[in-house]
Amino acid sequence: MSLNMQKEIHLANRPEGMPTNNDFRFVESEVPSPNDKQVLVRTLYLSVDPYMRGRMQDVKSYIAPFELDKVIVGGVVAEVVESKSESFKQGDVVVGTLNWAEYSVADENTIRKIDPKVAPVTTHLGILGMPGLTAYFGLLDIGKPQEGETVVVSGAAGAVGSVVGQIAKLKGARVVGIAGSDKKIDYLKNELGFDAAVNYKKESFADDLAEALPNGVDVYYDNVGGEVTDAVFTHLNRNARIPLCGAISSYNAAGKDVGPRIQSAMIKTSALMKGFTIGDYSSRFPEAAVDLGKWLQQGKLKYEETIVEGFERIPEAFLGLFKGKNLGKQLVKVADPKYADINR
Amino acid sequence: MSLNMQKEIHLANRPEGMPTNNDFRFVESEVPSPNDKQVLVRTLYLSVDPYMRGRMQDVKSYIAPFELDKVIVGGVVAEVVESKSESFKQGDVVVGTLNWAEYSVADENTIRKIDPKVAPVTTHLGILGMPGLTAYFGLLDIGKPQEGETVVVSGAAGAVGSVVGQIAKLKGARVVGIAGSDKKIDYLKNELGFDAAVNYKKESFADDLAEALPNGVDVYYDNVGGEVTDAVFTHLNRNARIPLCGAISSYNAAGKDVGPRIQSAMIKTSALMKGFTIGDYSSRFPEAAVDLGKWLQQGKLKYEETIVEGFERIPEAFLGLFKGKNLGKQLVKVADPKYADINR
Repeated sequence: MSLNMQKEIHLANRPEGMPTNNDFRFVESEVPSPNDKQVLVRTLYLSVDPYMRGRMQDVKSYIAPFELDKVIVGGVVAEVVESKSESFKQGDVVVGTLNWAEYSVADENTIRKIDPKVAPVTTHLGILGMPGLTAYFGLLDIGKPQEGETVVVSGAAGAVGSVVGQIAKLKGARVVGIAGSDKKIDYLKNELGFDAAVNYKKESFADDLAEALPNGVDVYYDNVGGEVTDAVFTHLNRNARIPLCGAISSYNAAGKDVGPRIQSAMIKTSALMKGFTIGDYSSRFPEAAVDLGKWLQQGKLKYEETIVEGFERIPEAFLGLFKGKNLGKQLVKVADPKYADINR
Repeated sequence: MSLNMQKEIHLANRPEGMPTNNDFRFVESEVPSPNDKQVLVRTLYLSVDPYMRGRMQDVKSYIAPFELDKVIVGGVVAEVVESKSESFKQGDVVVGTLNWAEYSVADENTIRKIDPKVAPVTTHLGILGMPGLTAYFGLLDIGKPQEGETVVVSGAAGAVGSVVGQIAKLKGARVVGIAGSDKKIDYLKNELGFDAAVNYKKESFADDLAEALPNGVDVYYDNVGGEVTDAVFTHLNRNARIPLCGAISSYNAAGKDVGPRIQSAMIKTSALMKGFTIGDYSSRFPEAAVDLGKWLQQGKLKYEETIVEGFERIPEAFLGLFKGKNLGKQLVKVADPKYADINR
């Protein structure tokens, strides 16, 4: 590979059901050159997120689908290699939605400079980034947990769920997490201080959940959908609130994803359910960033990262999300910095 | 039958699936006597409502189940026969939740006097009663239709749906009704002024619905659930609101009532769905009564009643609800008044 060539990843197929390695194509391309008000950046860390599965389908949604045979884009932390923008200089660390590529050119107004001295740069892909904001707004704006209420969160050990549960604790709620391994259950109870945590893969899940919910469910922050959600629905209290963040169990359901209809349960309890995506709250990101940053510095929020190393392992990291392999935020480390000092 | 004996209807069985005549038992009983602060009333009109199906099951809900082998209760318009209350006198017309019986004794604080000169007494079981209030709060408090938006209502020709559509028109929305017969479709379009109405029993329902919704759905007031709702869900706009009033298609689904999961569609559109029952709004009944009464007097709200005559036909009228036999409010006329002047 010439010095001016790089690797990038294209969408090779629109998967039906669970994606596979064959849906990704590694392509060599020339390292692009920045124009005026642009920068050339080098990918350091790259985020893989469940919502990206939706962009692999060619359907109308809140975000445009990825194009076939074009480069995939996602959350990236990168260092500036070459700048034709007055806002950035070589060695700056930035975050943005950038190519799944070793190098990207970005317009100056599409990336944000981050300070590696304030918090580890990877937090801007996790607890201080999209997953943290998603936890914050879904829980506080839709869920509105009150002191003493019970908050249940599914996908509890993931990048979003782990923040949901901790914020709910800060608000004085009793917090019950649902996750899929004993290691995750242990983490939720003993590291994050959840009041209870239940493994949905156990035969005894329904009973375990009932035992963890002596006072029912006031807020159900739903990251997963499917049968886990069916089980939680049998415990809804009057005026329950259900922020709908994700339905990872449905993303790979080829054909019809069916289950018990939920309308009657919602009428009986006067429950509220609201779908949302983080873009709904873009005007309020600053308030959330202040709170999340403060809680992080005060040690009131903890986080975990699962990091695999190597550009070629991006598909593996992405596919692992659907097998629940990650504890906390799943990241791919693509390269060590050449120009930036990121204190890691 | 002695002069002091009367008929009442007991719940004989908790039905599985569609109720039948066998689930009701006609029982003779003595006409009761009122004590202090009570009145004896004679049933004139009796309301049968879909929600009552829920009370026939022994499950936790927003309202206690009917007891087996006890008299069923529901909305009744009655005349006062004998009063031991200072608030009522013989010949007063009252409305309340009373026995499915020819006579009832009621505590003075559980019934409300109505004025037969202001509006026909039966409107207090329909457009000025529980169905009207249910339409009003679900649409305005949850649906919040804006001028130019599209409001879809299922069960559109029923007691609730017909009011929903007319209020939505008053608020400047484009209104599309869904109902189950050509007669109902004609009524919605040509009597109530709906912009479009679609018959869900036709083979072409999906296409007809799509044609009626060139701008998608902003508010879906759901009275029925099931496959009708599945079809509407494919047309949700961003930030759609879904007041969940009823799920009549599910009430008689013995065993599991399953269908496509809706969470992904709600996330993609940031939709809000809220179950409710009219009790949630009891503190705000007066404001609704003022608006509904005013609109009715101004001729801005129309209503239809389907009235069967005879106490013995109550089960038939109730069962007919689930076959969509009623246009507007389904009532049973039990008796002409002896003491009251109701101008009918």
